[in-house]
Amino acid sequence: MPEFNAPLRDMRFVLHEVFQGPALWARLPALADAVDAETADAILEEAAKITGQLIAPLNRSGDEEGVGFEAGAVTTPEGFKEAWQTYRDGGWVGLAGNPAYGGMGMPKMLAVQFEEMLYAANCSFSLYSALSAGCCLAIDAHASEALKATYLPRIYSGEWAGTMCLTEPHAGTDLGIIRSKAEPQADGSYAISGTKIFITGGDQDLTENIVHLVLAKLPDAPAGPKGISLFLVPKRMVNADGSLGQTNAVSCGSVEHKMGIKASATCVMNFDGAIGYLVGEENRGLAAMFTMMNYERLSIGIQGIGCAEASYQNAAAYARDRLQSRAASGPQAKDKIADPIIVHPDVRRMLLTMRALTEGGRAFATYVGQQLDISKYGDDPAECDSAQRLVALLTPVAKAFFTDTGLESCVLGQQVFGGHGYIREWGQEQLVRDVRIAQIYEGTNGIQALDLLGRKVVADGGQSLAIFAREIRAFCETAAPFSEPLLQALAQLESISQWLCQQAVKDPNAVGAASVEYLHVFGYVAYAYMWSRMAATAHENRAQDPDFYQAKLATAAFYFERLLPRVLSLNASIRAGSTSLYTLSAEQF
Amino acid sequence: MPEFNAPLRDMRFVLHEVFQGPALWARLPALADAVDAETADAILEEAAKITGQLIAPLNRSGDEEGVGFEAGAVTTPEGFKEAWQTYRDGGWVGLAGNPAYGGMGMPKMLAVQFEEMLYAANCSFSLYSALSAGCCLAIDAHASEALKATYLPRIYSGEWAGTMCLTEPHAGTDLGIIRSKAEPQADGSYAISGTKIFITGGDQDLTENIVHLVLAKLPDAPAGPKGISLFLVPKRMVNADGSLGQTNAVSCGSVEHKMGIKASATCVMNFDGAIGYLVGEENRGLAAMFTMMNYERLSIGIQGIGCAEASYQNAAAYARDRLQSRAASGPQAKDKIADPIIVHPDVRRMLLTMRALTEGGRAFATYVGQQLDISKYGDDPAECDSAQRLVALLTPVAKAFFTDTGLESCVLGQQVFGGHGYIREWGQEQLVRDVRIAQIYEGTNGIQALDLLGRKVVADGGQSLAIFAREIRAFCETAAPFSEPLLQALAQLESISQWLCQQAVKDPNAVGAASVEYLHVFGYVAYAYMWSRMAATAHENRAQDPDFYQAKLATAAFYFERLLPRVLSLNASIRAGSTSLYTLSAEQF
Repeated sequence: MPEFNAPLRDMRFVLHEVFQGPALWARLPALADAVDAETADAILEEAAKITGQLIAPLNRSGDEEGVGFEAGAVTTPEGFKEAWQTYRDGGWVGLAGNPAYGGMGMPKMLAVQFEEMLYAANCSFSLYSALSAGCCLAIDAHASEALKATYLPRIYSGEWAGTMCLTEPHAGTDLGIIRSKAEPQADGSYAISGTKIFITGGDQDLTENIVHLVLAKLPDAPAGPKGISLFLVPKRMVNADGSLGQTNAVSCGSVEHKMGIKASATCVMNFDGAIGYLVGEENRGLAAMFTMMNYERLSIGIQGIGCAEASYQNAAAYARDRLQSRAASGPQAKDKIADPIIVHPDVRRMLLTMRALTEGGRAFATYVGQQLDISKYGDDPAECDSAQRLVALLTPVAKAFFTDTGLESCVLGQQVFGGHGYIREWGQEQLVRDVRIAQIYEGTNGIQALDLLGRKVVADGGQSLAIFAREIRAFCETAAPFSEPLLQALAQLESISQWLCQQAVKDPNAVGAASVEYLHVFGYVAYAYMWSRMAATAHENRAQDPDFYQAKLATAAFYFERLLPRVLSLNASIRAGSTSLYTLSAEQF
Repeated sequence: MPEFNAPLRDMRFVLHEVFQGPALWARLPALADAVDAETADAILEEAAKITGQLIAPLNRSGDEEGVGFEAGAVTTPEGFKEAWQTYRDGGWVGLAGNPAYGGMGMPKMLAVQFEEMLYAANCSFSLYSALSAGCCLAIDAHASEALKATYLPRIYSGEWAGTMCLTEPHAGTDLGIIRSKAEPQADGSYAISGTKIFITGGDQDLTENIVHLVLAKLPDAPAGPKGISLFLVPKRMVNADGSLGQTNAVSCGSVEHKMGIKASATCVMNFDGAIGYLVGEENRGLAAMFTMMNYERLSIGIQGIGCAEASYQNAAAYARDRLQSRAASGPQAKDKIADPIIVHPDVRRMLLTMRALTEGGRAFATYVGQQLDISKYGDDPAECDSAQRLVALLTPVAKAFFTDTGLESCVLGQQVFGGHGYIREWGQEQLVRDVRIAQIYEGTNGIQALDLLGRKVVADGGQSLAIFAREIRAFCETAAPFSEPLLQALAQLESISQWLCQQAVKDPNAVGAASVEYLHVFGYVAYAYMWSRMAATAHENRAQDPDFYQAKLATAAFYFERLLPRVLSLNASIRAGSTSLYTLSAEQF
C-alpha cells in the first residue's frame, strides 16, 4: 500500500521563503499574535502526522468499502469514526475559523498546505471537513449573532458538521431555476421543502448533528438568481441550552454510486417542511454563497494538487525501484537484470511534468491564499482592494487549473506504473477516479472559465488583470531568472485578453468559445510567474542546501522549456473564434 | 441506461466513399469473391444489431458484477455466456480469419468498423473475442499445419478462445528478461513452467477450451529478446479425434481488481510443466509475436475510438435534452425554463472536439486497415511493399493516438454531463475507466512512441515517412479542401523528423525525450490528412445528402481551426531537447 509523506520541506519553501508568510503575519494585527514561523511549522508537522499516519491508511479501505446506506442513515467506512474523533480533537476543522467562535484563526496561506495534505491522504475523508469549513464561512459572514453563537463553535470543534445544499435534479449550474420553497412561519423561522441532490456529507455517522445550508425560494420571490434565499437547516433541532432536541424534517433519500470518492456520502436530501433559519437577507442567498466561494473554490482546487502530489510520490518511488530495459546511453545498474525505469527519458518527462505542475500549483495556492489573508486581515485599504481584486481574478484559475492539471498528473502517475497502474493494489487508479470530481463540483471548470473571462476580465475591463501584470513586471525588473520567457508569455496573455474584450462586443459567443482555453493560457502564465519566483528564491538560497535548490532550478527550467510552450497552441485555437462552433445545428450533432 | 447505435452512415462514408473499399476488393483476387459493397453493408447492419441489442445491454451490469473467481475458475457476469453463444454462432470471432480454416476472410478495413462497434458496446466482452482473433493471427502465420488444423477452426468458431501470455511479474515492457521455461520432451512437445500476469481471458466460462500462446525460454537459450520462443499451451489437451482430453498443468491463480474492464478476467496464470507446442522457430518467439502486432495494435487502438463514440453519442443526446441557463445570444427555447445546453459554446467545443477526434480516428483506422489489406492481399509487389511500410509506420500512431485522444474524448463526454457524469447511472464514468487501459496494454503508448520515432522514423532514415508525405502531397495537388494547413503541418512534421534524426546521432536520449510528443504531432498531421480527404469526398457528394455532408465539412473546419494548432506547442516542446530531463539525479525526484 502506498504511503503518503507530506512534502514539508517544499511547503516551508513556498510559505516561508518564497512568499515570506511570517513577515506578512507579523505586520497584520489579527495574525501577529496568532502565528509565527515556529507555530506554522509546528502545525505543519502535526498535520503531516495526522494525515500520513491516521487518515492516509484509511484511503484504500474506504474506497473498497464505500459508504453504507440503510433505513435513511449513512454509515462511513470502518475506521472513519475513530479517525474523525482524533481529527476533531486536534481542532483541524476550525484551523482557519473565526477565533471569536472557537476557530484557530490561522492564515489561509498556511491552511492551504494542510488542505493539500488532507486531500493527498484521503479525498473522501477530507470532504467531511471541507464542507464544514465552507459552511462556517457562510454562517460567519452572513448569519445572525444568535445563529453564529449556536452553530459555529460546534462545527469548528467537529462535534457537528456542515453541508451546502444547492443542486436540484433539474438545476445545477443554473441555480436561478431551483424549486425548493421556504414558507415564513409565525415564530420567524421558515418551513423548507424540496429535494436537493449531490449533497456531500448530507448524512453520515461521524457527528451528532448536521447543519445544512440550503438555497430556497420565498413565496413571491422574483424569478431567477435574484429570488433565492439561504437557510440554515439543522438535522436535529438545538435547544436553548445547546443540547439536541427533536429530529427536523430532513432525510437522506439515497446515496449516489460514483466513479470515486466512494467513502464520501453523496446524498439525495429531502426537506419536508423542515424548520430553517434565514442566513443573510431575503433574496440575497446567492450573494451570501458567493462570499465563501473564493475560499471554497481555492480549497476544492487544492484537491487537484493533493492528488497529484500523492500520485507523484508513488510514481517517483516506483520509477526508482522498477527494473525494466536498459538506458539508451548504456547500462546504468550493471549488477541488475535491467535499469530502474527512472533512467528512461519519457519516464523522466512524465515525472517532471507532474513535479512542475504540482509545485507550480502549490506556490500559486499559497500566493492566492496570501492575497485572501491580505484582503481579510490587511489594514491598508489600497492593499486590501488590490488583494481582493487579485483573489477574484485568480480564484477561478486556481480551482480549474489545479484540477485540470491534477487529472493530467494523476493519469501520468498511473502511466508510469504501466499495467500495475491500472489495478487497485497500487492506489494510482484510485487517485485518477478521486481527482476527477474536482473538475466538476463547486462549479464545473467550464463555469470557472466563464467566470474568469466573462466577469473577471471582460466585464472588469481588464483592470484586475492589469494589477497582476504590473506585479509580474515589477518582479521581473529584479533581474529574476526566466524573466524573458515569463514577460513574453505575459504579453501574449495581455494581447489575447485585449483581443477577446474586442470580440466580446461584437459576438455574444466570443467569451464562451474561448473561455476554457483562455483559462489554461492564464494558468500557464501564472505558473510561469510562480516558477520565476521560486527560481529567484532558490538561486538566492542555493548555497544552504544545494541539492534542494538545484532541483527547484532544474524543475523551473523544465517548466519553461517544455510546459509553458503549451500557450502557443491555446492562443492559436482561441483566435479561431466562435464561428466553427455554430456551423452545425443541434440536430446535426 | 445509455443506448448504443452503431454509426453506420459514418462507417459507410469512410469505407465506401472516402477510401473506396469496394473498388479495392474487386481488384484483389483473394477478396473479390468474398466481399462487395452489399455484403459489407449486410455485415455492418448485422454487427450493429448484435452489438447494440445483445452486447451493449450487458455493459453496465457486467461492470457492476465483475468476474467471479472461485476454486481456480473464473465466472463471467450474468448474460455473458448466452451472448457469447449468439456471438459465436454468428461467426464473428473469425470475421477476418483465414477461410482455409473456417474464417470469414473479410478485409481488415471492414473488420475495424466491427471492432469499433464492439468496443463501443462493451469493452470487456470485446476482449474475449479480440484476444482470440489475435491468437489466431499468430497461429496462422507461424504454427505447423497440424496445430493450425487442430486449433484455428475451433477458435474462429468461438468454441475455444485464445490468450497471449507475455508479461511476468518482473517483466512487462522488457520481455527479454522473462523467466518462464520450456523443457523439450521426448515426444517433440515442451514442458512449460512459469508465472504470467495480466492475462486477459486467462480463464473464463464462455468456451470449452482455452488456447494460451506463451513466451518462454528454452534451456541454454541466449539471454535477452533473441532467446525467447513461443508455445501453444491448451487448457485441456486435444485428442486425435478433436475431442477434449485431460486438463493440462495450467491454472489461474487469481484475478486482478482493476479500475475498469471489470467484466474481463485479468488473470495470473501458473504453468507447472504444462504441455506446449512450439509455434514458429526456436528463439524466434518475439518475431512471431510481432507478426500479429500490427493487426492487434490497430484493434486495441480502436478501443479508444469505440469508447469515444459511445461517450459522444451519450453526451450529444444529453446536451440536446438537458436544460440549463440561457444562450449568450438570448433565449432559444422560450417555452422552457432554460435552453438546452447544446446552445452554449463550450459544450459545443467539447462535442466538436470529440466528434473531430473520433471521426478522424475512424477514418485513419480504415486507412491503416486498407494498407493492411493491400499488404496482405495485393498482387503488385511495389504496392505491397509500400503498404507494408505504411502499416509499420502508422500502426504505433494509430494505437497510441486513438487511445490518448480516446481518453480525452471520454473525459470531455463525462464533463458535458456535469455532476451526472460522475455517477454510475449514466455510463460516462465507466467509459473513462474502461478506455484508460487501452493506453497501457498491448505496449504502453510510451513504447508505441519509441517504436514510431526510434524504429520507424530514425532507424528507417525517414523512408517510410517519405512515402506517406508523397501520398499526402499528391492528394493535395487535387485541389483538396484544407490542403494549405495540411501541407504546412506536414512540412513541420518533416522538419521536426529531420531535426530529430540529427539529434539522435549526437544524443542517445534524443529519441525518448521527444517520442510521445512526436507521436502526437504525427497523429494530428495524419488526422489532418484524413479530414482533408473526408472534406474532399463530402464536397463532391454534397448535393446528395446536404445535411450529412455539410456536417462533415463543418467538423473538418473545426479540426483545422481548433485542434490542428496543437502541433505548435508540441513542436516547441520537442525542440527543447533532452537536457532538462537529465538535470536531476534519480534521488532528487
